[in-house]
Order: sequence, then C-alpha cells, then structure tokens
Amino acid sequence: MSTPLKNDLFLRALLRQPTPRTPLWMMRQAGRYLPEYRATRGEAGSFMKLCMNPQYACEVTLQPLRRYALDAAILFSDILTIPHALGLGLEFEAGEGPRIDRPVRSAADIDQLPTLDPEVELRYVMDAVRTIRRELDGKVPLIGFAGSPWTVGTYVVEGGSSKTFSHIKGMLYGAPEQLHRLLAHLTRATIDYLKAQVHAGAQAVMVFDTWGGALSPAAYREFSLRYMQQIVAALPREQDGRRVPVILFTKGGGQWLAEMADTGADALGVDWTTDLATARATVADRVALQGNLDPSVLYAPPAAIRAEVGRVLASYGHGHGHVFNLGHGIHQDVPPEHAAAMVEAVHELSPRFHV
Amino acid sequence: MSTPLKNDLFLRALLRQPTPRTPLWMMRQAGRYLPEYRATRGEAGSFMKLCMNPQYACEVTLQPLRRYALDAAILFSDILTIPHALGLGLEFEAGEGPRIDRPVRSAADIDQLPTLDPEVELRYVMDAVRTIRRELDGKVPLIGFAGSPWTVGTYVVEGGSSKTFSHIKGMLYGAPEQLHRLLAHLTRATIDYLKAQVHAGAQAVMVFDTWGGALSPAAYREFSLRYMQQIVAALPREQDGRRVPVILFTKGGGQWLAEMADTGADALGVDWTTDLATARATVADRVALQGNLDPSVLYAPPAAIRAEVGRVLASYGHGHGHVFNLGHGIHQDVPPEHAAAMVEAVHELSPRFHV
Repeated sequence: MSTPLKNDLFLRALLRQPTPRTPLWMMRQAGRYLPEYRATRGEAGSFMKLCMNPQYACEVTLQPLRRYALDAAILFSDILTIPHALGLGLEFEAGEGPRIDRPVRSAADIDQLPTLDPEVELRYVMDAVRTIRRELDGKVPLIGFAGSPWTVGTYVVEGGSSKTFSHIKGMLYGAPEQLHRLLAHLTRATIDYLKAQVHAGAQAVMVFDTWGGALSPAAYREFSLRYMQQIVAALPREQDGRRVPVILFTKGGGQWLAEMADTGADALGVDWTTDLATARATVADRVALQGNLDPSVLYAPPAAIRAEVGRVLASYGHGHGHVFNLGHGIHQDVPPEHAAAMVEAVHELSPRFHV
Repeated sequence: MSTPLKNDLFLRALLRQPTPRTPLWMMRQAGRYLPEYRATRGEAGSFMKLCMNPQYACEVTLQPLRRYALDAAILFSDILTIPHALGLGLEFEAGEGPRIDRPVRSAADIDQLPTLDPEVELRYVMDAVRTIRRELDGKVPLIGFAGSPWTVGTYVVEGGSSKTFSHIKGMLYGAPEQLHRLLAHLTRATIDYLKAQVHAGAQAVMVFDTWGGALSPAAYREFSLRYMQQIVAALPREQDGRRVPVILFTKGGGQWLAEMADTGADALGVDWTTDLATARATVADRVALQGNLDPSVLYAPPAAIRAEVGRVLASYGHGHGHVFNLGHGIHQDVPPEHAAAMVEAVHELSPRFHV
C-alpha cells in the first residue's frame, strides 16, 4: 500500500489540480474488444468466474495498461456483484445480458434481503483489489466502483435488463415507499462495499448510474440522486494520507449536472450528448469532469478519431480538472488500434490546454 | 375535405391559441396494447400488410378514438415506409424489430437510390390518409408523420435497429460528405412524402427523430437538426385555409429545445427526462410543447397515474400551448384501462390551467 504512485495525473485532475496534460482512461477498457481479454475469459470459462478469481480479474485489469498509455486502472468486476452476493441468483447468458433468477418485487422479498459483509460475501472483490494494487506496483492509480442503487435496483426488480422498466417504475409510482426501502438496503450495501474497496486499496471510486437517465427529473432526484448523495457523504475521503476522489456518472444525466455537483462528489462523468463547455459552465468548476468522446467515434478511421479527440479537448478548454474518457464503455467490436489512436491523440493534443 | 372540424383543440393548442382544456393524444395510440388492434393485425397477417391496406390502416387508426376521448388521430403507418419504397427490402420479424435487406453503405449504394413519387410508390399511405379523413368525418384532426432523415438513415445504413450505430457513425465521422448525400436524398423524399400527406388530408405533421438523442450536440446540429429544418422550411403551412402545424420530436433532445424552436416548427415534442417548466422557459413560449408523461407511469395503478398527470399539467403551468401526450410511445403491455385513467385525468384536471 505504501508504494509511491509513479503517475498521479488522474488523481490530480479529479481534484482540479494542475497537470501537464489531460489524463485518460477508458470505460470498459478491460473488455471484449481486446483479443487477450477474450483469451483469458475463455480460459476462465465464464464472465462470473473471471470476476470471482482474483488472478484472472487482475490479469484482465492490467491488459489494457500493457497496450496503451492510460493513466488509471479500473478494477475488473461488475455492477451486479451486490445482487449476486445477496443470493438473488445472477447469471450471464451469452448474448442475453444479465439475468436475476429471484427478482425482488414484494415487501416480503425486500424484508428477506440479507445484510452483507463485503469481506465475506464479496471477499473475492477485495482480494482482486489487493492483488491488482500489488501487481500495479504504483504504476497508475486503481479505481474501485459500484453501480448506483437505482441502477442496481433496476436489475434486481426487473430480473435483468429492461427497456421499459415496467416492474420498478410500477413500484416507483405505485408503491414508492417500498422502492425506497429496497434502495435504502442497496445503498447501505453499496457504502460498505465501496468502503471495503477503498480499505483494500482503491484510490478513487466511481458510481455508475447507467439507468438514471431513464427517469423524469423529479424521479431522478428522489430515487437515484438522493441515494448517490448518501454514498458520497458516507465514504472515507482519505486513505494513506491521500484524498480518495469520488466520481458520479449518470448516463443521460446531462441536464442534472448542477444537482449532481451539489452532492459533494469530486468529479462527474459526462456522456457525449452534452458539450463539455456547457457542462463546465453548468458546474462552474466546482467539480472535475470526465468524458466524453462518443464511443462510436472509434468506428471511424484514426485521422477522424484524432480530430474528434481534439474537439473534446477544445470543448473542455484551457485549464485543469478534465479527465479524458469515452462517454460510455468502449464497444466490443472496435479495433484495438483505433483505441490506440485515441490514446495517442490525447497525449499529443492535450498539453497545450494546460499551459 | 370540407367537413368542418368538430374538435380543433389540438390544432389550436399547437398554435398556442386559447383552449378550454389541454388536448391530448398518445404516441402509438393505435397499437399492440389494444386487443382490437391485435385482432385486426392478426387478420391482416403482418405489420406491413396492416400499413399497406388503407381499410386496415383506417380501422386501427380509429380504434383508440372509439375507446378514449382523444383530440387527434394519427395515421397508422411506420417511419420505414420510405426505405421500403426505395426498394431496400424491409421486413419486420417477430420480436426482432425491423430488418433492411440491402443496407446503404457505399457511395455507389447512395447513387443508386431512386427518386420517389409519393403518389406512386407510397400511394397506399395517401389512400390511407384519404380513407381516414373520410371516416373521421371531422371528429378530430388527423396527424401525418415521417421519421427524421437521420433516424430513417440509421435503419437504412445499419440494416435495422442498433445500439451502437457502428456503420452510420463510422460514416458520420469517417466519410461525412457521403452521409450528407444520403441524408439529402432522404430529406427530399421526406419533404415530398409529407407534402403529399398534407395534400391528401393530414391536418398537422410530426417528424419523429427517435435517434437524434444518440448524437453529440455538434453531430445533432449537422446531421439531424439541419435536415429537419429543411423539412420545416419546405412544407406547405396552409391547406384548405387552415394552418398545418409542424411538430418536431427528438427523443433525448431536451438539451437542444432552443435550437429546435429556431427551425420555425410550431411545436416540439418533449420526452419525460425534461421538465415542461424548464422546456417552456427554454423556448420562451415561441413554440407549443407536446408531452411528456413517462409511458411507464401507465404500469402504476390509476390513482398514481392521475397524480402524475397532475404533475405534468402543473409542470407546464397556466396558459395555452400544451398538448398532453406520453413522452414516447405507449408500451405494448400496458392495460388499456390505465390509458383510460390518464385520458380522464387530463380531461378533469386540465381546465383549471386554462382560466
């Protein structure tokens, strides 16, 4: 834990401190677009076995860092580890997305949810964090993460992915107190989980609110943002004498950035449907911003990728507090050399925004 | 064509003229949630046969009006009639969404696209419009519609639905001039198509930009909004001595309402992720607004539906220029009596906002 960090650009940018260039990482950087990832996953046998074996999880976490000059590693895991640990029966079926065998829909279902000890039921995650920290050896910081209670709740109530969110929205509008009890339970579990990740060695944490953007503004405030705020408030903000920044990311949340900044988070993720110039003006430099290249830009040839990287950097503009990233996870059919073109472009084009 | 309109609340609201209550209709009101629709579709044999037979199209257009006190009918058709007429081979497979057999991906593909005569290749649509107008007999106005060129383009280039838009975004960033040529072709076809619908009897027209919200702000302006603007500018705005209002709807376009209002459209559709109060302030009452109940509210019990209808009405607030609607199409598994609860609530709760 005491290895000095050789590259702390990412942590400094999250705290809006000066950096000589814009640091970057990629959401889902350890993923199927990399042949070495597919090989390791094949060896592990399944996605959950990859997550649950600290050696495999460490291996795939480090793979993108061997290829690209990235400024952060992110724990290889899934936002559904908590429902899995709650005993709801999580399965990933090929091409089908996640499935939860025992969805939580009644008051009785909610009452029966166990309280988790992350060092017991989720010990494999903490072991992965410790293993990765050791193997990283201070090269770059390690990001821990969890899904937002609302987002995890959508899978827990729907029993998997959904386009209409019929069950959870039926509950949200028809039995809001019941949904609040579920979200409160998930929030407590998420706080303990993220605390344990920080204790195990995560140097920043990110909360992924993938489905907050499916809500109306009023419902977002009450059922998603409120619980993320509780997480931000409860997390330890220092570890080993260094601040542990918290990043909130609501996909489709471009209209709510000011309220998200009010939570006290250090940084906000921004998807590509909001200009970083607009976002920066909205949050008035109270928080750092992370984003926001459209992941589908990586389907274009390298010269076009470079031009779009330049647009994103220019959109944030001069000054510190920007972490370059995609606006969502990298797509699995992107050629790895296109990701390389993006990384190179950030290294080459960003210094001029920091003078 | 000369039957006087018995209920013109919808047309008046679109022009921000006084009405005694808020008019309403539902996107996809003629649809699978209605057992009578499923029966007619079963009789027709397929979705395209339903669209292409003016008697069937008329029947399903009128079905929701028999059940609910709605203030507008919308032509039963599909946004993919243009690709179908272009000979690209459209099929709807059960549970799979639309599929286009011959996607348009190269410059040569674009060069080969034929020019359409809507009264020839799309005559069945015009026949449906004429049949519906006759059967409506002035009860409520009839809305004609088309997909936006960008949205139709996504299907044409991808060959169907897509989550990543890999082909069209690869073209957008890698070969923008080629995409512009395709969009210009689709725009010309759409203008002719909507003109013919108005000529055949459509009393308002709506442009559905279902996938504009998947774009960055800069790409939205250049590849979606620009072409919708051309459509607005080219449409006849009067027919039979009455203004034909144009509604633009970009799903996920809440951040771009001011620019959408600049097109000269009469009204904008708003999805449920933007408060109507915010939207109204943004457009400064230059246009009417249509929306925006989350369609998933209809999964909740009637009392909750009524409360949410009240919130939407209050969010728009006092004054004219609001057409109540869902924020997107009604879901197919919603109980029809829940739609009835929504319709009743609008009738009962809206008059107080018009005094």
